Amino acid sequence: MNENIKLNIKKYEEIRQRLSMYYYFMNIVYWDSATVAPKMSYIQRGNNLGMLSEDLYKIRTGEEYTKTVDFLYENKDQLDPEFRHEIELIKEDIEQTKKIPMNELIEFEKLLNESQIVWEEAKNEKDFLKFKPYLQKIVEFRRKEAKYLETDKLKGYDVLLNNYERGYTQKEYDEFFGLLKEKLVPFVKKVCAANNNKLDLNKYEYNIEKQKELAKYMGDVLCFDFSRGTMGETEHPFTWNASTNDVRITNHFYKNEFSSSLFSAIHELGHALYEQNVDPKYNDTFISGGVSMAMHESQSRFYENIIGRNYNFWKNHYPKVKELYSEQLKDVSLDDFYKYVNNVELSFIRTEADELTYPLHIMLRYELERDLISGKLEVESVEEAWNQKFKEYFGLDVPNASLGILQDSHWSGGSIGYFPTYALGSAIASQLYDKMNEEFDVEKSLDSSNTKQINEWLTNKIHKFGSSKYPKEILEEALDGKFDANHYINYLKEKYSKIYNVDK
Amino acid sequence: MNENIKLNIKKYEEIRQRLSMYYYFMNIVYWDSATVAPKMSYIQRGNNLGMLSEDLYKIRTGEEYTKTVDFLYENKDQLDPEFRHEIELIKEDIEQTKKIPMNELIEFEKLLNESQIVWEEAKNEKDFLKFKPYLQKIVEFRRKEAKYLETDKLKGYDVLLNNYERGYTQKEYDEFFGLLKEKLVPFVKKVCAANNNKLDLNKYEYNIEKQKELAKYMGDVLCFDFSRGTMGETEHPFTWNASTNDVRITNHFYKNEFSSSLFSAIHELGHALYEQNVDPKYNDTFISGGVSMAMHESQSRFYENIIGRNYNFWKNHYPKVKELYSEQLKDVSLDDFYKYVNNVELSFIRTEADELTYPLHIMLRYELERDLISGKLEVESVEEAWNQKFKEYFGLDVPNASLGILQDSHWSGGSIGYFPTYALGSAIASQLYDKMNEEFDVEKSLDSSNTKQINEWLTNKIHKFGSSKYPKEILEEALDGKFDANHYINYLKEKYSKIYNVDK
Repeated sequence: MNENIKLNIKKYEEIRQRLSMYYYFMNIVYWDSATVAPKMSYIQRGNNLGMLSEDLYKIRTGEEYTKTVDFLYENKDQLDPEFRHEIELIKEDIEQTKKIPMNELIEFEKLLNESQIVWEEAKNEKDFLKFKPYLQKIVEFRRKEAKYLETDKLKGYDVLLNNYERGYTQKEYDEFFGLLKEKLVPFVKKVCAANNNKLDLNKYEYNIEKQKELAKYMGDVLCFDFSRGTMGETEHPFTWNASTNDVRITNHFYKNEFSSSLFSAIHELGHALYEQNVDPKYNDTFISGGVSMAMHESQSRFYENIIGRNYNFWKNHYPKVKELYSEQLKDVSLDDFYKYVNNVELSFIRTEADELTYPLHIMLRYELERDLISGKLEVESVEEAWNQKFKEYFGLDVPNASLGILQDSHWSGGSIGYFPTYALGSAIASQLYDKMNEEFDVEKSLDSSNTKQINEWLTNKIHKFGSSKYPKEILEEALDGKFDANHYINYLKEKYSKIYNVDK
Repeated sequence: MNENIKLNIKKYEEIRQRLSMYYYFMNIVYWDSATVAPKMSYIQRGNNLGMLSEDLYKIRTGEEYTKTVDFLYENKDQLDPEFRHEIELIKEDIEQTKKIPMNELIEFEKLLNESQIVWEEAKNEKDFLKFKPYLQKIVEFRRKEAKYLETDKLKGYDVLLNNYERGYTQKEYDEFFGLLKEKLVPFVKKVCAANNNKLDLNKYEYNIEKQKELAKYMGDVLCFDFSRGTMGETEHPFTWNASTNDVRITNHFYKNEFSSSLFSAIHELGHALYEQNVDPKYNDTFISGGVSMAMHESQSRFYENIIGRNYNFWKNHYPKVKELYSEQLKDVSLDDFYKYVNNVELSFIRTEADELTYPLHIMLRYELERDLISGKLEVESVEEAWNQKFKEYFGLDVPNASLGILQDSHWSGGSIGYFPTYALGSAIASQLYDKMNEEFDVEKSLDSSNTKQINEWLTNKIHKFGSSKYPKEILEEALDGKFDANHYINYLKEKYSKIYNVDK
């Protein structure tokens, strides 16, 4: 490697260190604001984050950085593969950043600040009309953004999809959701028509300290490293990370619903394990952390559903739950509990949906987003379209916008193209499970006191790579083949036809 | 004001905004590390804070900033008084910063990182010898620092004292502690000889959620604004602030000691009220926040002791405590409770000491620090000196270093000159109480559901000024006179001679 390349690598690493520092502070401030900061702290926080964003933008588009990256990009054949990959990503990132005028980005940021507040009000008041003008502007910006960023290969909605999950375009998603619509919608109707005597466990109270203890127990079972992570409390659970040495999850606790905090914990722990198990050598580089949204969701859903709603898992761990809530669960057998945590029900709210009906919620959102960006659908009639589709897939009339189009914060937060990764992630999880079973008996491994064997497989196949390769590369190497949604359909039909005693 | 001054003010404000941003991020990261960050996050945090500190140092000693400050300082007569005060402070700060070689400061920072860890180990192992070499180096650095920073007026220990409480030198403190030694030590011995049947309330358990509720209730009573503040949890309670809109306290909760979290809450709320009530126009300037350590402590001690251990206060609020712990306190009358929270006892640990014996703990530390810096005492024999003085003032033999010289984190954290401000603060609180009583009947005001009248007086006399004047200026204007420790002696003798039925 010649001296000039070495010099440029050094320069790049220096600037990267500075950028990482800024991202670190942004990250910590975000955690703080989401978990503890008092209401009125927003002004100071906003001012400081605004200043930091400007600094970041200046560095990321500044001559020193861009020239260094350009030079390294031109000489990328001489870089080692992982570093080359990082430079390719950054080169693309810089080019994309430059394509959107700074003032439009700033305007959009301001719009999002407002729109989040208005959305919350509108949701409380069940009034979509209030939020509509903001959604209108968000959709307009995203349509315009798609134009700015379009390439020969990617246009329109594909550009937005690519922001969240590289390598999956409308073509792939249309196929995927087409399959779900064809195979899953009729099956869901059969399951829901079957006799369902759901246990009423919400009539009892479940001590919050014990719910926290159970979440911590799950942390131990799933091999979450508490010296490199912690658990906080927020209304909407999320996973946060600053490095492999600092990975945090949050949870919510309701006194009548112990299963809510239990499954939120398992879900978020799935995300958190991914982050903790990335090779630490990527810390503070731009190929650190989970590689994509769908890959992340595949891990959280793997733990939440495939492990966390698995009979063999609870054979081992239900005694712990029963020990904590001996009074409330005294008449609830393992079989009862298994059926309880796999209860299927057509319902309005995505985040409360069960494993089987969940992807239908996503399918609906995907179709609406896709048509909004193409212009086939306008914001003017999106609420109507939502309600019509909901009737078609779920057979239910949406009673108001809070139980319908206003339920999620994604669109008000500006995210269009994000939703489909949730369903894709669930589907990937099933295929990973099948692949894992080719290598060892996963069900049998659940007899163990923890999920170490599973974690190690996922770490070696997925986690450890961080973002050092493209998501499709990592996935296809792990699967030794292409993504195939039939694994997902089969997994769901196999499991729920047994539980509900219906035909596949 | 001429254009050049205006231009320099603008330049100064721009740099100040950037510095404030850096301080804000440091501040948030500090809060995070003290409250929630997992153990292994320290590496990333250390690296990023290190980089930020270097940036800060460069700006603070850089030509652009220092020339601007110099220019404004030379033209200070044309600045409005508050801004002039800020420039004077900053000018002094820059000059002090430049006097200590950067490499020595960095070395010292590294030493402190290590010394904190070693101190903790030494404390656990009750082994002063382990910590001694670190204390040696810390004392040496502070002696050297005193040389670097000495002026015609301030030399030796005075330089260090001035870092924590401007305007109080060894001369003042010698007088103050001399008075305590003469008047208080014999009185304490009389009180402790009196019959003391302390109630054993620690034999019961006190639900932690209810302890938190009580802390929150105290927040409301003392008029803490929860929209501009919050309460967290740490082993060692502290108050933190980033602006008047973001002031936080922490607390610890022990299931057998409800009074520990109760009085920690009141103490920290005293600090927090001060910060919340500073005029918000000073936010993000360098004259924001409480003016000095002693002034801060005067506020926390005012609330903790003068209000929080006051009979009339509990007449009003003990029913709330009793409501929460009706079972445990069913036989405890208001008079019992009052005596319980004013129990006097000679004991080893400063942070657990009562209002009356507390200043003796400080006096001991003050004398040792003073003699260490002057060279009259060497680190070699400081443990012996501690134990001798303890015997003299408390009549007790120190059984081991953890109950003696290793108990506090101040010295291991590098703070020499800090301790005396604690006692000074308590003394100031008594004098403020006497002054307040000249203007309204403080005891009567405690009949009210909250301490609004008291807060308003303190806000108008102390809080609102932030750091826009020197501490002595603010204090002497508030008192309409000089500080006089006799108020403190009289207050303590008056109160405890009654409770314990002994002569003053």
